Amino acid sequence: MKKLNTSPLSGTQELLPWAQTLFDKYRETIAAAYAAHGFQHIDTPAIDRTEILLAKAGGETEKQIYRVYKTSKKAADSEQALRFDQTVSLARYTVEHENDLAFPFRVYQIGRSYRGERAQKGRFREFYQCDVDVIGRNRLAVAYDAEVIATLYDALRSIKGLPEFRIRISNRKILTGLLQELNLDDLSAEIFAIVDHAEKVPREQTVAALQGLGLGSENVVKITAFTEIRGGRHEVMTKLHSFKLENATFRTGVTELNEVLELLEAQLPAENFIADMLIVRGLDYYTGTVFETFCLEYPGLGSICSGGRYENLAGHYTDWILPGVGGSIGLTRLFSVLTEAGLISSDATAPIDIALIPLDKTVRGRTFLLAKQLRAEGKTVDVVLSDKKLWDKMAHAAKVAKYACVLGPDEIIRGSAQLKDLKTGELSELKFG
Amino acid sequence: MKKLNTSPLSGTQELLPWAQTLFDKYRETIAAAYAAHGFQHIDTPAIDRTEILLAKAGGETEKQIYRVYKTSKKAADSEQALRFDQTVSLARYTVEHENDLAFPFRVYQIGRSYRGERAQKGRFREFYQCDVDVIGRNRLAVAYDAEVIATLYDALRSIKGLPEFRIRISNRKILTGLLQELNLDDLSAEIFAIVDHAEKVPREQTVAALQGLGLGSENVVKITAFTEIRGGRHEVMTKLHSFKLENATFRTGVTELNEVLELLEAQLPAENFIADMLIVRGLDYYTGTVFETFCLEYPGLGSICSGGRYENLAGHYTDWILPGVGGSIGLTRLFSVLTEAGLISSDATAPIDIALIPLDKTVRGRTFLLAKQLRAEGKTVDVVLSDKKLWDKMAHAAKVAKYACVLGPDEIIRGSAQLKDLKTGELSELKFG
Repeated sequence: MKKLNTSPLSGTQELLPWAQTLFDKYRETIAAAYAAHGFQHIDTPAIDRTEILLAKAGGETEKQIYRVYKTSKKAADSEQALRFDQTVSLARYTVEHENDLAFPFRVYQIGRSYRGERAQKGRFREFYQCDVDVIGRNRLAVAYDAEVIATLYDALRSIKGLPEFRIRISNRKILTGLLQELNLDDLSAEIFAIVDHAEKVPREQTVAALQGLGLGSENVVKITAFTEIRGGRHEVMTKLHSFKLENATFRTGVTELNEVLELLEAQLPAENFIADMLIVRGLDYYTGTVFETFCLEYPGLGSICSGGRYENLAGHYTDWILPGVGGSIGLTRLFSVLTEAGLISSDATAPIDIALIPLDKTVRGRTFLLAKQLRAEGKTVDVVLSDKKLWDKMAHAAKVAKYACVLGPDEIIRGSAQLKDLKTGELSELKFG
Repeated sequence: MKKLNTSPLSGTQELLPWAQTLFDKYRETIAAAYAAHGFQHIDTPAIDRTEILLAKAGGETEKQIYRVYKTSKKAADSEQALRFDQTVSLARYTVEHENDLAFPFRVYQIGRSYRGERAQKGRFREFYQCDVDVIGRNRLAVAYDAEVIATLYDALRSIKGLPEFRIRISNRKILTGLLQELNLDDLSAEIFAIVDHAEKVPREQTVAALQGLGLGSENVVKITAFTEIRGGRHEVMTKLHSFKLENATFRTGVTELNEVLELLEAQLPAENFIADMLIVRGLDYYTGTVFETFCLEYPGLGSICSGGRYENLAGHYTDWILPGVGGSIGLTRLFSVLTEAGLISSDATAPIDIALIPLDKTVRGRTFLLAKQLRAEGKTVDVVLSDKKLWDKMAHAAKVAKYACVLGPDEIIRGSAQLKDLKTGELSELKFG
């Protein structure tokens, strides 16, 4: 009988071994894709100074932040908290170690962050994110925006079983310039928020929201028409040029978007990315390129990989200008939504390779030597050491391994034993030196 | 100029990319050794219910625990805290998922725990531990004690550059039985603490401490003579048998120790383990086999890997009896002491393999294709995309990569380019398809 509630805290992810094996594989292949693109790994603390974490935060983030204090101290003294994302850690790290880093600094982080979210499906209080960023000093070529997207593409592609996906790309300067041209700068934040939300509500609601800001119908038509522009590079460039705007911000945005798309054409299959003016990202943190990624047949999963360009990473910590571009795969959330959608199932069991069963105590030493030999060949091997009946040991082997092999004195003398495939029952010969 | 203190919180470990690469390699080879022995990975949350964490804890642990609360809530409401070790997580996990696990459950965890330690060298508030455990249901063969030690040996052996080490092994039942026989049961906890501490103080101080408990000189001699027993199996067994004790606990301990040593003889080099009665571990949590590991030429590093047998993992959470045996490599502390001792230096730089430098924008597409080809061959590749002068790009390449290669229109037509070894200056030919 249980004496305490042993379920994991709500909002945390805890996996059975077979699922953990799959999760680890995702994590490893993502890391390998980042590393293959020349990104370097850093592993920053999840606990940090409250003043660092709150320098930029505010509103919702501040309310959700987890503060940390010792039982022996008063909570009010708490100057430590758990980070709510890894970007704050990256900003602090880059400023702190600036003299030891080579810029542009290609960096990735795969770690946990914490948010006091209200408990609900798909919302996590403790979660892994796989971030990839390039940080420049003073300036950073726009080509790196494409490099980050190409890297994330390779990372997503490496995830076995992930449904087909498409990266939707835009540049915030384009809508910013358009709004300047329409003399709607003042309403910029509100309009960005409405566009960001547009896909989740019926079209009329978006129109009504824009009208609600006091926009004339001509402007409403222009903005909604703008947000409906999507497609390949040539198609989208033609449509954007047809606006015939002289506005410098607009034109810079269009030029940057064109370069990013052109660089991606050289690297990604055409069906995996698209220019899409509906993508603006809610955060005003982003200042240029922005992107989100959706699974074509599972739009309900939401964006599985997003990011963009920011003009200054660490303005709250330093006077240096550190422009950057980054993106992130929300691994805990991704794994959870794929499970929900039935795309990960327990059929994906990941047992170890071989269970070796010594028949009695006299042959254990020889069994260890065989285990060593098999491990040197890259196999995972469980030597079943329990002092139960052979029947029980076989039953255990069937639960944990793909193959089982019983070793007794005869097998040792013969120098070979029968290897049993625990799924098919097939027998084969295992020789040992 | 910095606006805020950007150093990481004291008591956390933050590494530069070259050191992080090395740390990651340690972590990976340890995980690989655990997996090769058939252990399954689980990754439990670092945040948990306070009642779970405090069910067993008390004294120092309770004072050091980090509680967690949301800014928007009162600290007093805090029912969440950060775990202080992974054993509590393992206990909760095993009880919660008992029906889905195969026992004996071979499991490993590599994750972070948190303690509000006073800031000082070698003490960490956030640290990684690499735990390996076997959990039985109701009972667990003593052979698994040897299996855990052999697994940890392979893990330590996999760490490149680790100085030679020796695992010192004993069994708490032996001293427990001896004290029963001497009618010193009542002072058992105190005597264990004195023995555990003996190596850190002069011999006279240990003798004085035992005398201070009111022990007669005959008993003091017996106990100190006992704690000086160390050596190979036969030697130690002979000495222990010479005590001629009938005490059942003593005899069980001797038999168990003999079996563990015998099983290790079949697997480990003789110089890497030793029976040593001075090892008792401070924690009364352990009930049988106990072990600690020291680097022979660097005893000052302290134990780099310890563990033992416990009779009941989760007695505070459930009525089931879950005996287990486990051990742990304190990776953050190990990495830190090796650095302190000068055994890890920045000579161990770990740059990426190749920096590809496109001479101008027209050849970027072709450069991406070459990068893709090289990545498919397992190379890590940075395409230098900055719009700076060639000289600057070369300087960047020299900082981040082992080889550099400049691609211009001529190289593209020729289908080959010069690969420069950035250390020796040597040139070789790089052909591309």
